[in-house]
Amino acid sequence: MRFLLGPILMGLALMMLVPCAVALYYGSPDLKAFLVSEAITASAALLLIITGRRNIIHLRLRDMFLLTSLSWILVCIFGALPFILSHTVGSFTDAVFESVSAVTTTGATVLTGLDSMPRDMLLWRSMMQWLGGLGIIALGTAVLPFLRIGGMRLFNTESSDLSEKALPSTRRIMNRLLIVYLLISATCALAYNLAGMTAFDAINHAMTTVSTGGFSTHDTSLGYFDSEAIELISMIFMLLAAVPFMLYLPMLLGRRIGLLSDGQVQSMFAIYLAVALILSIWLVLTDQMGVFPAFHDAAFNVISIGTTTGYVSSDHSTWGSFAAMTFFFLTFVGGCSGSTSGGIKIFRFKIAFFMFHETLQRLLHPNAVFSRTLQGRPLTDEIVASVMAFSLAFATIVGLAAILLAAAGNDVVTSISAAATTMANVGPGIGDVIGPTGTFASLTDQSKWVLCTTMLLGRLEIFTMLLLLTPAFWRA
Amino acid sequence: MRFLLGPILMGLALMMLVPCAVALYYGSPDLKAFLVSEAITASAALLLIITGRRNIIHLRLRDMFLLTSLSWILVCIFGALPFILSHTVGSFTDAVFESVSAVTTTGATVLTGLDSMPRDMLLWRSMMQWLGGLGIIALGTAVLPFLRIGGMRLFNTESSDLSEKALPSTRRIMNRLLIVYLLISATCALAYNLAGMTAFDAINHAMTTVSTGGFSTHDTSLGYFDSEAIELISMIFMLLAAVPFMLYLPMLLGRRIGLLSDGQVQSMFAIYLAVALILSIWLVLTDQMGVFPAFHDAAFNVISIGTTTGYVSSDHSTWGSFAAMTFFFLTFVGGCSGSTSGGIKIFRFKIAFFMFHETLQRLLHPNAVFSRTLQGRPLTDEIVASVMAFSLAFATIVGLAAILLAAAGNDVVTSISAAATTMANVGPGIGDVIGPTGTFASLTDQSKWVLCTTMLLGRLEIFTMLLLLTPAFWRA
Repeated sequence: MRFLLGPILMGLALMMLVPCAVALYYGSPDLKAFLVSEAITASAALLLIITGRRNIIHLRLRDMFLLTSLSWILVCIFGALPFILSHTVGSFTDAVFESVSAVTTTGATVLTGLDSMPRDMLLWRSMMQWLGGLGIIALGTAVLPFLRIGGMRLFNTESSDLSEKALPSTRRIMNRLLIVYLLISATCALAYNLAGMTAFDAINHAMTTVSTGGFSTHDTSLGYFDSEAIELISMIFMLLAAVPFMLYLPMLLGRRIGLLSDGQVQSMFAIYLAVALILSIWLVLTDQMGVFPAFHDAAFNVISIGTTTGYVSSDHSTWGSFAAMTFFFLTFVGGCSGSTSGGIKIFRFKIAFFMFHETLQRLLHPNAVFSRTLQGRPLTDEIVASVMAFSLAFATIVGLAAILLAAAGNDVVTSISAAATTMANVGPGIGDVIGPTGTFASLTDQSKWVLCTTMLLGRLEIFTMLLLLTPAFWRA
Repeated sequence: MRFLLGPILMGLALMMLVPCAVALYYGSPDLKAFLVSEAITASAALLLIITGRRNIIHLRLRDMFLLTSLSWILVCIFGALPFILSHTVGSFTDAVFESVSAVTTTGATVLTGLDSMPRDMLLWRSMMQWLGGLGIIALGTAVLPFLRIGGMRLFNTESSDLSEKALPSTRRIMNRLLIVYLLISATCALAYNLAGMTAFDAINHAMTTVSTGGFSTHDTSLGYFDSEAIELISMIFMLLAAVPFMLYLPMLLGRRIGLLSDGQVQSMFAIYLAVALILSIWLVLTDQMGVFPAFHDAAFNVISIGTTTGYVSSDHSTWGSFAAMTFFFLTFVGGCSGSTSGGIKIFRFKIAFFMFHETLQRLLHPNAVFSRTLQGRPLTDEIVASVMAFSLAFATIVGLAAILLAAAGNDVVTSISAAATTMANVGPGIGDVIGPTGTFASLTDQSKWVLCTTMLLGRLEIFTMLLLLTPAFWRA
């Protein structure tokens, strides 16, 4: 598999040239760290490429699981090098945590003092999120449906046929997705810039918006800008990033795109809107805000958490436990499959709700025959079983992680919220420690390693990594 | 349906004669309250019986859903009369809460000063739990599998055939279950008495043990007795009560019963044992206790929460957030179907784990054919869908209830824990308010009504009541 991991690492090395150049331009103290990281990453990539046997193109199924997990882990490790070698990040654990949080587009941070941090370091954090977003679009569109992970077989399309015959067409689709991702990122950066951000802030935030990552260049996140225009732009692009990117492809051919005709997108918008409305009514009824600020703030935070971005515009921990509880459960929801967002994802809730509806019907009509289709695709036994397995695994891992975090000395709210927010790749949690104004810095090293695991498991839809832990995988 | 609700209420009225007699004997201040309650309940029962048309025996499917929900609600309301009319319980809301908590065998209480409370009132609380336990055994064995609720179709047996032809045999099985329930209750009372409880305490605790209800006659629950023997007896009978009661029937015919050969019972014991071991290792490693007290205390609390009884032997809120987090997740597990315990129940986790295992297998062998059987019974599409629907409904209702509780002013931990512990019919939760040493008394009236709803929904496996809220149920 080295012939595939090599180019991925080489891509990372190429991207690392950007912060190198920025560090050089600004005479940053981190220049040496970036140059050494660049050298190590590029060497490792070259080594893999040279030693990799090119003639084996046929990948077995199990190679693909290994390759997927390994590529993510390798990027996390090599991407952490600048953090490890510089003096910006306190410890090795913190460096890896920040890197994993970036690549998985979680956006949980252990860093404070962002406002005075060297630009190269800020840029590298944002670029890793952007790269992680690109990776998950490719993974969610082509690889995971092909591997039948977590019911994503439902979205098996032309793009997710990795057989040798179909590979050229898959590659063409991947290239188009890259162009769309670049276009949306550039548009977002331009909009941010026009709304008043500096070019540097605009580029950074565009990268962390379209990847639904949520890293900022300021400790107070988007709240720093205190601009309704910027928050509005952010909301629009967070929503656009939580849509299946395949839906944008007709745009490239000059055709109209109909986001709202997609069932998953419809449900996502409906859920976010309902929660935002309820939350803003609550804010108004409890005399915390007027109607418009309430809806604005509620919508921003609902979209930020729902799409698993994790930007913060205001300290919603002062809104009381109703808001905290709502945000906690919203953490699990997530966006659409094939987007950059995380969480359990809308389509799984749709499938579960389909079963809920069928079950209610069957109680009244025990002998009726039910057909199972969702958005015109058949809901096979396999997909239903996968979604059930995914839900059980998600809940169990959040539970185990929360218990481990509690054992590491965290309070109950921090434990359960940290487990959920990292598993869903959201970022901030609830409570005093990891809430909207907090960071993950004060957590113990053990806690941070637990969270690195949940971030990776969540990002790779659990089963991609879980399978590697079964003896059956390594037999045969 | 009045011809069926009448006898149920008449049964309640007959049971109410016991606290009437006790109140008379002790010259209790509550005598009047009990006599009036008795009169009202008996009159209502007679009215229903007289006006009910006896000649209609054929119940339609939808009548059975309505009947099941109505009978539970009626018993809760009429059972609350003594609380409402006496001066023991503060308010109407509290009276209903205590009654619902009793009948659903939850065991969450709003009362303190139990040690000095009139005996008739204590006895009535315990008797209602015992009655609720009997009701859920009948419901879980015969009615719910017949109605295909929440995947319980898996347990469709001779006993759950409510067709007219099979009714006599079902009635015979129900009678046997009653005898088993009486026998186990009597044995439990005797054991408690021999271990040092007064006859009154022994009878009360036997009734709340075999119903996995958890009401006590003392504010400090089982901790009052400070007796390892009593706690051991309690553990044994809580476990016996969490087993499908059908498994005891061969006992009546003089045959051996093999509890441990049942897959569901095996899994339940394995889960409880694993959690108890981990918890006791934690208690020893953190220097909180020696090896034996640690295992004893851990096992007691794990069994108490796992079987959804909710007795408290010591204040485990001082054990730290690791224990709190563990108990929180254990709340959801529950015991076996066809027992008196609540929660999500072991067989649903077994089905979900079956799907998990199948999904992992399928990732490696996409074209393999999988057969789906659990304990020799086929896992049909319908059962899998039902379990999925149940899980979604359970999680959603816990989430909504937690959000409503937060809106009513409760803190985050209390909100989420109260929602979970009532939905699973456990009783105590975690945190300062409703933890092992707390009560539900300080919660607002709104909160208590939310919890009455979750207790009933949880007890009736959600769908029995949920179906009544759909327009489709009332059409046609």
